[in-house]
Formats: sequence, structure tokens, C-alpha cells
Amino acid sequence: MRNRLHFNISTFEIDEKQKLFNEIDKECLSIGYYNLPEQNIDNILEFVNSFDESVENIVVLGIGGSSLGAKAVYEFLKPVKKPWRKLYFFESTDPLNIMEILSKIELDKSHFLVISKSGTTVETISIFKYLYAKESRATRYTFITDKESPLDKFATKIGSKVFYLPKNVGGRFSVLSVVGLLPLALCGVNISELLKGAKSVKESFFNDGYLKESLLNKAMFYAKYHTTYNINCLFAYSETLRYFSEWYVQLWGESLGKKQCNSAFHVGVTPIGLIGPKDQHSFLQLIVEGTRDKSVTFIKIDDFQNELTIPNITLPYLESLDILNGITFHDLITMQSDSVIEALKAQGDIPLDEIIIERVDERSIGQLIYYYELLTSLVGKLINVNTYNQPGVESGKIILKNKLQKRSKNDK
Amino acid sequence: MRNRLHFNISTFEIDEKQKLFNEIDKECLSIGYYNLPEQNIDNILEFVNSFDESVENIVVLGIGGSSLGAKAVYEFLKPVKKPWRKLYFFESTDPLNIMEILSKIELDKSHFLVISKSGTTVETISIFKYLYAKESRATRYTFITDKESPLDKFATKIGSKVFYLPKNVGGRFSVLSVVGLLPLALCGVNISELLKGAKSVKESFFNDGYLKESLLNKAMFYAKYHTTYNINCLFAYSETLRYFSEWYVQLWGESLGKKQCNSAFHVGVTPIGLIGPKDQHSFLQLIVEGTRDKSVTFIKIDDFQNELTIPNITLPYLESLDILNGITFHDLITMQSDSVIEALKAQGDIPLDEIIIERVDERSIGQLIYYYELLTSLVGKLINVNTYNQPGVESGKIILKNKLQKRSKNDK
Repeated sequence: MRNRLHFNISTFEIDEKQKLFNEIDKECLSIGYYNLPEQNIDNILEFVNSFDESVENIVVLGIGGSSLGAKAVYEFLKPVKKPWRKLYFFESTDPLNIMEILSKIELDKSHFLVISKSGTTVETISIFKYLYAKESRATRYTFITDKESPLDKFATKIGSKVFYLPKNVGGRFSVLSVVGLLPLALCGVNISELLKGAKSVKESFFNDGYLKESLLNKAMFYAKYHTTYNINCLFAYSETLRYFSEWYVQLWGESLGKKQCNSAFHVGVTPIGLIGPKDQHSFLQLIVEGTRDKSVTFIKIDDFQNELTIPNITLPYLESLDILNGITFHDLITMQSDSVIEALKAQGDIPLDEIIIERVDERSIGQLIYYYELLTSLVGKLINVNTYNQPGVESGKIILKNKLQKRSKNDK
Repeated sequence: MRNRLHFNISTFEIDEKQKLFNEIDKECLSIGYYNLPEQNIDNILEFVNSFDESVENIVVLGIGGSSLGAKAVYEFLKPVKKPWRKLYFFESTDPLNIMEILSKIELDKSHFLVISKSGTTVETISIFKYLYAKESRATRYTFITDKESPLDKFATKIGSKVFYLPKNVGGRFSVLSVVGLLPLALCGVNISELLKGAKSVKESFFNDGYLKESLLNKAMFYAKYHTTYNINCLFAYSETLRYFSEWYVQLWGESLGKKQCNSAFHVGVTPIGLIGPKDQHSFLQLIVEGTRDKSVTFIKIDDFQNELTIPNITLPYLESLDILNGITFHDLITMQSDSVIEALKAQGDIPLDEIIIERVDERSIGQLIYYYELLTSLVGKLINVNTYNQPGVESGKIILKNKLQKRSKNDK
């Protein structure tokens, strides 16, 4: 993994950077996600090794941090590495969506992972109740939740297997914990490699490696100009990263969109996930000519492990496009991203950077995940927010609970 | 379709609104999309009626405006109305993506729609060359392009059927032209109803109907505060609208992200597509507590035509969630959106509005499409941009062409 910054970082002092580094270094003691790359995964691997071989579908009941991470990794790897089992997600209360997923899975060949940190997530429990009424065998379910949560107690009572979330790991930082690792391992993802990828970024940052400078500089730039560039676009040149960008949107938006600590001032940087070259034909115009309120990070894949080639044929009246002949699609998409980067650089006033990952494998996505988690923590520290909570979503939940209670009483 | 605005519109003068209305009214003479609801679709229906019944897959080769509209409508209707044929889209040069789609379709049961306004779109022609080398029967292809384009001449030479884009209809405003109607009709979508939906919004706006005031007020608010609220979120409470939101992102971003007419000043409002309740667990925190730079439009569906119900069961330790018992998922998702709207209203400083569509059918999506096209035209007029061009994407295309030419010469 490499990272090239194309914006001016000359104004940042060495001691400012050291101060930031020290603060993050200190967070490793209290915030759980930093240490996930070194966790012991024996219990997960044992569970997977003795898992019922007749199960064809792993079905996650979870929403937000309980689903986005595993989905990002699964969908990234799928086109290159055929999964052992199919992974499905119930992550909405939309009845049409629930029906659609139900129509795709054979219940009898499915195992359900019910994932809820609090154990009382409305969406997840609603769907669980629906499924449990159809399939109540405890062996068909595995639960991932906080120790002592109502869901933990329920699962223990019916005799299902329960895994616990590690301490001080929030939902959106949990993909490298059992929350992401269990469903992925059950589908054949090499979770050791995933963690090794994350570890390589961790070591590079904390042990004076190649990523330390670029992460610190990038975070300081984003934080310094967060009111000017209040939008951050992640422009990934591969469809495989489509769900990674959904994961990034949650991580970035929910971590950084806050009232500042000790003030009532609203801050935040808005995340946008784009996929190239498709979004060259959609969002690019807005980046090139629109308001200068966006920073852009391009993600490119070094090696698509694929030789699909445009054939050497000439079509009458379309001879001008013979310049495409004999080129691999891999080379074409790389030239497309390079051309757009060049065009944006020429504008001169759009902060750009490039991340290049090696290939579509576990190690690369592990690196990308940990890189973005670190970047989020760094920017959060600098714009003075609590990166790890989400108090803003509570009021809507309370209003819903009241509505449901009122309705429930009226029914009686 | 209804639209409720929850922001202050009292400052807008009647004559300002009339002036804006008159300018848009005038545009109907020069801009083609306004008049698509009244077009004659006999040629499309005839083509569809005599179409080869053995064809199971309609495969669109197109990108941006050539694919997003049909995809939005097809995916919206799919969970409720089983399509006659499956619709696939090649819309990327990503080799892994191309391989994945190829693995899903049987070439022999597929018909290919090659859609490119200019006839020389790099992505579309690249994939076309690849497919044409495998399947060169002219009857397997239908082309949609501008009259006299290189692609028109090629198609005519090989003897394939060609449809032409109507005059003065840009790609991102073309979903209600043959570009969207042909693939949709081939998959069983009732395109007459789609156009009727659009027409009802058109008439409501142009003939003093219920939507005229809300559209004018909303556009004036967005334009007046476009530097304060430089982000517009569309928060749709239905997974069926996922691809509609991608269509909206192109329409809004590419139309409004511009240098102002007669000035070099960069303007634009950044579109963001969100899906509820999923994004309550992702993006909502940023809306509630983050920077006050966002307006939010909620889209709700009045009738999901679905009675899926949470069963009346009590689970030990989860008794507090019995308030969910006996409720339909339809009612639950509606209560969820209402709760979030209420919570955001209570913040007092976030501009909100609600769009309610009747149900998942052709008429409703036709309304939504035309509503957003009109809104885009209105805002574009007020922020003084050319809504219908996209000059910003040209420089990247030129750089790519140069790279390809250089490479092609080096190969010789």
C-alpha cells in the first residue's frame, strides 16, 4: 500500500505532528480497535473448522457497524476468490427488501448470525423475531453481542453459541473483531491475512514507517481546512470497493460529525463514496467545476490479476477508437484514473491524494481498513470531537420507542 | 405525490417566483426533456411487441445517463412486479466487474442495447468490441445514439436496428426518452404509465397545480442558501429507491456543479443519496450533530403493498421489545422515518422536506423523475449555470485519448 499526497503540507511543524502522534499513541490504551490486529483468533477458527458443512448460506442480521464491515470485505474479495458459502445481510426493515432476501435463501441450508452490540437494536430484533417464528432451532443461530446484554441472556437461555464484542470497540470500528471476522471466516476469507494487512499499517504508523508521515500530514491538512473542504470524496477505481465505500461513509460521517468537545459548535467532514470510471460520467463534473469544497482521495489497484483484453478489431466508422485495440481492461481503467487525476491536478486548487493497494486480497483490504480507521482517529483528535460515540442518533430512537409504546397500549 | 416543506419560505416575493416560472416556461421551447411526457411511443411499443420471445436477458452497454435512469426504474419496480426479462448493465471498464456480469448471462439468450449519445464513449465501445468479437450477429444488437454519429453509421452498415435520441435531450435527462423506455419496455415495464406519472407532475407545475408552489419555494430556498447548505441529502425510506438515488446524484451533481454563466465563479450543491433506516446507523449522526451545511429531503412510500408482520412472540429477557409485536414492517419503517424527521425538526436549524409517493409503481417513479428534473432546472436557473452541459469532464477525456494514442504508436 502506498499513499501519495498532492497538496501543500509544508506549513505543518514537526512538533505539532509529534504532539498529534503522542495523543493517538496514548489512545491505544483506552480505545479497543487499535489492538485488534494482535488479537487471538483461535476460538473463531475452531468454531469455523467444526462448523456444519451442509450450511450453504451465512445470514447476518445486523445493521450499521454490525454489517457494513463484513459486507465490504466479502464483496471486495468475491470477484477474485469464490467464497465457500454465500453471505447475506438483513439490514433493513423495508418489507420488500426482507421479502427479496427471503426469496433467495433456503432457510434449511442457512445459519443466522444475530449481531447487536446493545442486544436491543430495533431493526435486528424485528427481523430476528420474524425468522425465529419460522426456525426456532437454537443450533441455527449464533449471537454476537455485549456480555450481559439482554440478547446474551436470551441466547444463553435457548442454548445458542454466543460470541462477545471486545471491550471498548465501537460498532463502526468492529470489522476486525469477531463482528466481521466470524461471518468472513465462515465464508472462507483468510482472516489471519486480513489482520496481517491491518498490522502492517499499524506498524508502519507507530514504528516510524512509510505511512506515518503521510497519515499525519493528511490528517492535519483535513483538520486545518475542514470548514473550507467540508466534503471528502473517496474515488475508488474498482467496483470491488463499492461496499468498502459504504463502510467508509459510516466510519467517517458518524465519527467526525459531532459537536466539539466542551463547545456546542457543530463540525464534521461529509464523506462521499465514488466508483470510477462510472462516476466520471456522474459526479466528476461537480468536482472539476463546482464549488471548491471537496478533497478527493483516489484508490487504485496495482494488479487486477486479470488479463481481459479489448480485441484487435476495426469497426467501420469507429476507426478512431482503434487506439483501444489490444489493451487490457486493467490497463485501460488505470489510464482512466491517471487521466482524471492529471486533469484535476491541472485545476490547481483541489486537494488530491492517491492510495495504491497491491491487489484484490485479504491483506490489501486489511491495510485499507486500518489506514482509514487511523485517519479517522487522527482527524477526530484534531477537530476536537469524541470520535467514538454517536449521541446524535439517540433522540430519534426515543421518539420511535414512544410511538411504539403508544401504539402497543392503544392495541390493548 | 405530495411534498411538504419544513423550512421558512416567507421571504420569497410573488414576482420573484413568477419571474422564475416564466423563465422555465420559456425553456420548454429549447430543452427537449420537458416535452417527453407527450412523446409518441408507438415505435417503441411495436418493436417490443414483435421482439424475439426467446430472449431472456436485456443487456445495456452504456454509462452515466445511458444506464442510470433505466436502472433506477427497473430496480424500483423489481421487488413488486416480476420483470419479463432480466436487465443487466455493463457500465464499467473494471475487468472484474465485466467478468462477473459475463458469468451471469447466457450470451445466446441475450439481446444487447448499445447506448451512446456521441457514439464514441470509450467505456461503451471497449465493451462492445469485446462482445462483438464473441457474438457478431447484427440481430442481437440494437443501438441508441445520435443520428449521423459514427455508431449510427456502423449500426446501419451491419444492418442492426437503430433508435435515435430526441433532439436537445442530454444524457442525464434522457430516462423518459427511448434511452430509458426501450430497455424498460422490453422488461415489461408499463412505459405509458411511467410517462403519465411524469405528465401529472408537469401539469401540476405548469398549470397552477399543487406542486407549483412547493417546487418554486424549494428551488428558491436551495438557491438562496446554496453556499450555506452546499450539500443536499435525499433520504429515501425504501431500498427500492437505491438506484434512483444514484440517478439523482448524476442529475443534480452534473447539472449544478458549474462555473456560473459569464463568470469564473465555481458553484454547485453536492448530492448525497441515503437509504433509511440503514443510514440512520451510518450518516444520521453527521446530519444531527455535524456542520449545518446540509438540507435533507425525505422520500416515503405511502403503501408498500405488503403485509409482512412481526409475530406476536415474547422472547425471554427481550420483553421490552414486545412493543414491536404485531406491527407490519410497513408501519415500522414509516414510524422510523417519522421519528427521524421529528428528531431533526427539533434541532430547529436543518432545512427539511418530505416527498410522499403513493406506491411502488410506474406512475410514482415517473412522478419522482420529473419532479427532480424540474427542481434541477429551477435551481440551475437561479444559481446562474448552464444546467444542460458538462464541460468539466472533457479535459480528462482528452488526456486519456492522448495516452491511448501514444501507447498505440509505441506498439507499432
